[in-house]
Amino acid sequence: MKKAIILLGCPESPSQTPLAVYAAYKLTGMGYQVSVASTPSAKKLVEVSDPEEHYVQNKIDIESCLDGLNQGDYDFLLGFVAKDAAVSYFVTFYHILQTKSLALVFHRDREKMEYFENTVKENTGADITSARAYHNPTPLRVRLDRALEKMEKSDKGNQENKKDKTEDS
Amino acid sequence: MKKAIILLGCPESPSQTPLAVYAAYKLTGMGYQVSVASTPSAKKLVEVSDPEEHYVQNKIDIESCLDGLNQGDYDFLLGFVAKDAAVSYFVTFYHILQTKSLALVFHRDREKMEYFENTVKENTGADITSARAYHNPTPLRVRLDRALEKMEKSDKGNQENKKDKTEDS
Repeated sequence: MKKAIILLGCPESPSQTPLAVYAAYKLTGMGYQVSVASTPSAKKLVEVSDPEEHYVQNKIDIESCLDGLNQGDYDFLLGFVAKDAAVSYFVTFYHILQTKSLALVFHRDREKMEYFENTVKENTGADITSARAYHNPTPLRVRLDRALEKMEKSDKGNQENKKDKTEDS
Repeated sequence: MKKAIILLGCPESPSQTPLAVYAAYKLTGMGYQVSVASTPSAKKLVEVSDPEEHYVQNKIDIESCLDGLNQGDYDFLLGFVAKDAAVSYFVTFYHILQTKSLALVFHRDREKMEYFENTVKENTGADITSARAYHNPTPLRVRLDRALEKMEKSDKGNQENKKDKTEDS
């Protein structure tokens, strides 16, 4: 089974936990086994938000996760990037995992958002999708949906290419 | 079936949506049919947070709800009070419904929290439970658990009293 990891830093925005649960739900629907790696307060919010674990079954501490992390442990990295610390986590996980990666950059303040976006761009080759988001999760949810859809299409394309190549050989 | 209504104002704190979902889950477990009445952005956050509606099935706009509200429509009112507007909503719903009510007061700033608490105290006879909460939902979750437990015990006590009286008569 394909494995995805969602990274959550300390939550400043009311949109982060709802969108993290939503992302876990979407990725599960795409056939991923999903783990959420987060800071202690972000973890508590996910726990309270999903008391029966319908959406998020695997919750890990982001620091312990990092300690034992190796290339190839996950097939997809999704980082919630809304603070400086979250940028650092994303860049670090990106370089260790060396896998398909998406940074979901958001902030109430446009300048901060652009700064986070540029820092991710300069330090990784990850896909980036961003929106100003605070109270209203919709702009970011729509962009996340689009990015995951694009990824799914490109995965299918790659699989078909591989299939064609196998059939050709 | 007993009916409960949860009131949500615009979310400032990252704890509000997770705790609202948690409260719906707890009240459902206590045998209530739960409705969440909220502002548009709070509603979107609940939708994103629970895409398969495991926890919250009935979501209504707080203003439309208020328009058609009558005494006796709900058996329990739970208000999330973290802003001035949320205080007003709670006080208004309290006086229309005239039912068992609990205000969950929270804010990152102690002074604001105390101000909201006092305003609710001066304008209603509702139970109040409060905690400083922003990133970490645990203090507020623990207080909510305690308040609901107390309410459940008092409900059981009342039912037993009623039963005794019926048996006596």
